[in-house]
Amino acid sequence: MSTDIEILIQKISRLPGLGPRSARRMVIHLLQNKEQNFDPILMALQKVHDNVKVCPICGNIDTFDEVCSICANPSRNKNVICVVENVADLWALERTSCFSGHYHVLKGLLSSIEGKGPEVLLLEKLTQRYTENHVEEIIIALSATIEGQMTDNYIREYFKNKNIKITSLARGIPMGGELDYLDDSTLFTAFSERG
Amino acid sequence: MSTDIEILIQKISRLPGLGPRSARRMVIHLLQNKEQNFDPILMALQKVHDNVKVCPICGNIDTFDEVCSICANPSRNKNVICVVENVADLWALERTSCFSGHYHVLKGLLSSIEGKGPEVLLLEKLTQRYTENHVEEIIIALSATIEGQMTDNYIREYFKNKNIKITSLARGIPMGGELDYLDDSTLFTAFSERG
Repeated sequence: MSTDIEILIQKISRLPGLGPRSARRMVIHLLQNKEQNFDPILMALQKVHDNVKVCPICGNIDTFDEVCSICANPSRNKNVICVVENVADLWALERTSCFSGHYHVLKGLLSSIEGKGPEVLLLEKLTQRYTENHVEEIIIALSATIEGQMTDNYIREYFKNKNIKITSLARGIPMGGELDYLDDSTLFTAFSERG
Repeated sequence: MSTDIEILIQKISRLPGLGPRSARRMVIHLLQNKEQNFDPILMALQKVHDNVKVCPICGNIDTFDEVCSICANPSRNKNVICVVENVADLWALERTSCFSGHYHVLKGLLSSIEGKGPEVLLLEKLTQRYTENHVEEIIIALSATIEGQMTDNYIREYFKNKNIKITSLARGIPMGGELDYLDDSTLFTAFSERG
């Protein structure tokens, strides 16, 4: 095995969810039938790599001309903006089809450990969209972690004196969750936020 | 998510060991920090893709000028040739460092289901190497499956009347294997081939 192949395996093995064994298996698969396996995947990677951009309005990562397909879609509701931590979360929400408004993708969550301050929230950009587009509601759709809740609070505080409705995702028992298997804090939240 | 990204995720999800969920996670990882994640992996893939060749002597897949690093290595023993099914098996043997001879990589095993006949064994090429290089031993290192054993028998039959030693990998209890957890055929083989 040449160093080039070893370097490739090493790089692939560092991708999330993979290790040296699965990386080796993948490379072998690519090498064994180059035309059928390697060529199409390399072309698809190259195409996405060359064309992908960050949307100047919402921060979505996609291939587009001026703004991403969500911002360019006239049938989506411009008056509701959903704040998400990253593009993975945006994709997850899009898969459920529960939301037809626009997004605001953060550059991360507030985190003193990672040294991330309010600048990652791009709130000036959000304020600008909010004043320009008669935004009626900002939905904060962040993970229920400490960082997520800190960021949620910060955004609520920031928009406190402005006449805008701020909502967050509901917290409680996940669908299919059995009471006696839930962790204490989920059960506590579900109990205290009952309705 | 644009169609380009969807196509890429679909292609990656068909790689061995992956599914739509892990493919999505991988693409998100690549997109989220293009310079740090996407660029180096794409370069490494492109480099391997452009330089990888099949060794004209042994059939190993690698990056090299004329013959692969194993065939070009003068310190390896030219008088022993090990027959393996594919490059993955060659890599597996190389990792154990138990063998310092040369290889003969098949293009598959005999299989009536997959319609693979003796042509995949490249036996003329092996015969030519065997006459040219005073080969003393051919080691057949194939999986202990029906196809592997059929192929093993075929190669033995082919070289029967030639003055050459043919050996196969030992069959028996795998290291760490506990007797009462072994399948019947392994136990039967280990018992009948005791020594």
